[in-house]
Amino acid sequence: MPTPSRFDPNAPRIYPEPVEPDPADAESLDVWGFRDTRFRAREDGVVEVTGSRYELSGQELPDLLPWVQEAVHPDIGPRNLNPPAYPPAIPAPRANPAFLEELRKTLAEDQISEDPELRLRHGHGHTQEEMWAIKYARLPRVPDLVVWPTDERQVEALVEAARRHDVSLIPYGGGTNVTDALRCPPGEERCIVSVDMSRMSRILWIDPVNRMASIQAGAVGRHIAEGLARHGFTLGHEPDSVEFSTLGGWIATHASGMKKNRYGNIEDLVLDVSVVTARGRLERAAVAPRESVGSGDVRRWILGSEGCLGIVTSAVVKVFPLPEVQRYGSIVFPDFESGVRFLYQLQQAGDVPASVRLVDNFQFQFSQMLKPRRTGLARAKSRIEKLVVTRLKGFDVQRMTACTLVFEGTRDEVRQQEKTTYRIARAHGGLAGGAENGKRGYQLTFSIAYLRDWVMNHYLLGESFETSVPWSQALVLCENVKRRIRDEFARRKLPGRPFLTCRVTQIYETGVCVYFYFGFYFKGIENPSEVYAEIERAARDEVLRSGGSLSHHHGVGKIRRIFLPRTVSPGVQAWGREIKNAVDPTNVFGAGNQLFG
Amino acid sequence: MPTPSRFDPNAPRIYPEPVEPDPADAESLDVWGFRDTRFRAREDGVVEVTGSRYELSGQELPDLLPWVQEAVHPDIGPRNLNPPAYPPAIPAPRANPAFLEELRKTLAEDQISEDPELRLRHGHGHTQEEMWAIKYARLPRVPDLVVWPTDERQVEALVEAARRHDVSLIPYGGGTNVTDALRCPPGEERCIVSVDMSRMSRILWIDPVNRMASIQAGAVGRHIAEGLARHGFTLGHEPDSVEFSTLGGWIATHASGMKKNRYGNIEDLVLDVSVVTARGRLERAAVAPRESVGSGDVRRWILGSEGCLGIVTSAVVKVFPLPEVQRYGSIVFPDFESGVRFLYQLQQAGDVPASVRLVDNFQFQFSQMLKPRRTGLARAKSRIEKLVVTRLKGFDVQRMTACTLVFEGTRDEVRQQEKTTYRIARAHGGLAGGAENGKRGYQLTFSIAYLRDWVMNHYLLGESFETSVPWSQALVLCENVKRRIRDEFARRKLPGRPFLTCRVTQIYETGVCVYFYFGFYFKGIENPSEVYAEIERAARDEVLRSGGSLSHHHGVGKIRRIFLPRTVSPGVQAWGREIKNAVDPTNVFGAGNQLFG
Repeated sequence: MPTPSRFDPNAPRIYPEPVEPDPADAESLDVWGFRDTRFRAREDGVVEVTGSRYELSGQELPDLLPWVQEAVHPDIGPRNLNPPAYPPAIPAPRANPAFLEELRKTLAEDQISEDPELRLRHGHGHTQEEMWAIKYARLPRVPDLVVWPTDERQVEALVEAARRHDVSLIPYGGGTNVTDALRCPPGEERCIVSVDMSRMSRILWIDPVNRMASIQAGAVGRHIAEGLARHGFTLGHEPDSVEFSTLGGWIATHASGMKKNRYGNIEDLVLDVSVVTARGRLERAAVAPRESVGSGDVRRWILGSEGCLGIVTSAVVKVFPLPEVQRYGSIVFPDFESGVRFLYQLQQAGDVPASVRLVDNFQFQFSQMLKPRRTGLARAKSRIEKLVVTRLKGFDVQRMTACTLVFEGTRDEVRQQEKTTYRIARAHGGLAGGAENGKRGYQLTFSIAYLRDWVMNHYLLGESFETSVPWSQALVLCENVKRRIRDEFARRKLPGRPFLTCRVTQIYETGVCVYFYFGFYFKGIENPSEVYAEIERAARDEVLRSGGSLSHHHGVGKIRRIFLPRTVSPGVQAWGREIKNAVDPTNVFGAGNQLFG
Repeated sequence: MPTPSRFDPNAPRIYPEPVEPDPADAESLDVWGFRDTRFRAREDGVVEVTGSRYELSGQELPDLLPWVQEAVHPDIGPRNLNPPAYPPAIPAPRANPAFLEELRKTLAEDQISEDPELRLRHGHGHTQEEMWAIKYARLPRVPDLVVWPTDERQVEALVEAARRHDVSLIPYGGGTNVTDALRCPPGEERCIVSVDMSRMSRILWIDPVNRMASIQAGAVGRHIAEGLARHGFTLGHEPDSVEFSTLGGWIATHASGMKKNRYGNIEDLVLDVSVVTARGRLERAAVAPRESVGSGDVRRWILGSEGCLGIVTSAVVKVFPLPEVQRYGSIVFPDFESGVRFLYQLQQAGDVPASVRLVDNFQFQFSQMLKPRRTGLARAKSRIEKLVVTRLKGFDVQRMTACTLVFEGTRDEVRQQEKTTYRIARAHGGLAGGAENGKRGYQLTFSIAYLRDWVMNHYLLGESFETSVPWSQALVLCENVKRRIRDEFARRKLPGRPFLTCRVTQIYETGVCVYFYFGFYFKGIENPSEVYAEIERAARDEVLRSGGSLSHHHGVGKIRRIFLPRTVSPGVQAWGREIKNAVDPTNVFGAGNQLFG
């Protein structure tokens, strides 16, 4: 593998071969993720995970169900089933024959589809309301047509045709959105076309000297990683959805990656964007390392525009040499507050690992229950470890928390980061928990994403939501939001106990990102999805009251729009409206998200 | 001095006392800088610097004039004078009595002025054309009125009055702009009012836990530094103009600071802005460490808006504890290319010092000529140093270059940075040149800013301009631009030789910022200022041809507007126009810069 560090101004650009799609990587239409991976509860209560791609795949999880029964509701189990009724009734498409006719001049037959299940899939992301709807209810409106452009010229033709024939376009990347941004506005009378970018997924070039790459917007994270790694580079951007989400989606939602401490968030990584809008193409002649060209810097307009101002077709991004060293780590703390204090000191000290995430006690316990069945030596070892932590160090199993760490960099950098991190951890009562637990904790992100859809089959409805908050408010916010959810839960007399947990997933100089999970047992509850939405809104109300933001990285979409008047002045709202009208006067990009609804 | 690193969520905000203006800090109206500081050539050819605030102040510079005579033109000297005729004829103000009447309801008499010299001063920045105009020609149009609001409410009243009475407002910070952004559009028929923000200059609060401060837009850099330092903090933002430029100006021009490697550029430092616009106030309920709220993030619209979309009234910025250690350093290299290769490796290695700047040979020589007269031991020592470098190491005085370094951070960080920096320097033939030379080189930035106005009195017209460029094009761009300027110089048969030099002032992962200085002896040349402008345009043409950007940090203003069609697509230009119309339909903010002209 080349380590491209020599300064050779004449080193040529690399034009990588496209990553061929692997049929084994087929994705589910009805639930999160790859088709080969599903959770399943056996009759004996042991949970199994199918497939072979994750650490949990092919494993038996004997502790999970008993723990959930105790923590949430005793009736959750293999015989108490709420089978999904996917696919739901799918609305018939609204035809726009003139548009379709024009489209056929540019796109081939296999680039246009009216297939109901495909239209359905393109009409939602992965909020609980959406996943509930496609499995237990219905979506009132889905795209009328799905198209797959293969180049920028086709995207332009598409936008021009939409403009002429009064069609609404909704760009579609990986379909992993969690703010209802992909949902069709219910009042939309026009034909809605989902523009699926998956056939514009190439790494166009890699510039090894200047460490940049031009990548098409439809490229998914795992293919970007694979394609760059072949040439010794990485983008370093790893949102939880990195297996499925796309560069264009990251730009449109203003995404954050788990390793942002080393590589930055999407706004730090993207150097330039090319965009097709209702007022022409936005593009620039050259990509500079940094510029003062005000509104001539197209990124400003487009980052976080949530599909409402144009379609990103490609972007130039920074790339980094693959790290010399990657090491995992973990630390257990006696309680959550110690962990937060540790994070604060670590941020101030510098030498911050690529990723550092702190889970609360509930999530710590939960992750222990996701451990596969152990035998012999592994089991004995694990028992001894527990003994040390809880007996000798006096950690309370009902209070202790854990932090997972990923170190990346040169040997020296990683050594220095480890030194600093563990030194500060010790000063806060932390105890190193080993690399294996760190790796497991980090990688668990990808497999637990499958859990939510599975537990719906067992009458458990759950969802995550995030915020960012200044350091001084972090602990208060976590407490307030949990209390509020417990109150809302009790007030509604919901059965059992809430599945309620949070973790700190990012740290910044001025504060943190906090990620909440909330779930409840909904058997016997009328409209559980609406009940959930109500409680989530109450939680957001509490987030805002506690000094938190409307969103750290999920975006606003439609799900959080109602809170905009509480977070921005009327002037900001007016600017949003006026600007949208100015650059897209006929609302070609009619997804209706954020300020543009 | 407190080192505020304890995590005390209840630590109160600090409300600093305002920094009292010091009468000794009075600024010149006709030239750059403080009144106490001027360069002066004695009859014997020795140059003196008045005042006491800089290292050069009170010193004698015996080598400067002889060197300039050799390098540029032999006639440059104390007896060959081109005395300025400041103040020039100042256009009479255009009255708008109804507006003035309304204004007087909100502003006191001492907040409104029609004084000609003040109006003149508010009608320009510091481009050569502007400084030439006020000293040897005239400005065809200057503001008709200058106002000094003292709070946000007054700014709102001002904007509302301007909207109602069809007045054009031009925000004014430190007056240090170098893109003609403050100049009045010549065709403007309306009354033009300069909104001087200098009375809104307070640090409103410092949040020691979350390391943020809220600062009014009119605060100048040196006062921000002083006010924060009293409480153990720094903003770390040091543009060359930091003594005079303001927070609002930095935001409006998208400024860069010399220590950006440690603290970031203005876009990294600003967490939130409050802005008064023609469509109301832009403000938000809370400041989060990082957010995905798309266009709800007001910074996007305002950074780099160059006074054309609204008036920034205050901003929340990151602050950092004052560094434990600050150390200077310098390195000499056998030639410019070695220096650039060193910078590339250093950027890739990480551990980059807060500031690292590489001058070319011409600038290296020039800076040697700015050394005060030395006597005795100092002189002997300096000679020995030269001997080592040129005799023993074989450095060619006509090719060697120098790099100045500023290290800031904890003791460990600085040690690590020094180790890495000097190790890589040695590998590129570099030789440590000592801390004293590093400090001198860095601090020289502030005193040489006075040179340009002074040399105009001696028939030397000069100016700086900057760009950013990918690493692989850096050397080529420097060569091309210098060659082009030499060609343009020769083609016009200008007298003597050009003063022509460049330096690399910033490094990034993907490239560098390059700063050029060009000057020429203009005695006997008709319209020298126009000749200069022509050559500068040719240089910019060459910058763009060579892969450089329109601006790294100066902005676009009016001086670079003509190049916008070459750097952004028609779509981007249309967006600029449409958005301006949408949010400021009657062009209240009529400065006419950038895409908004």
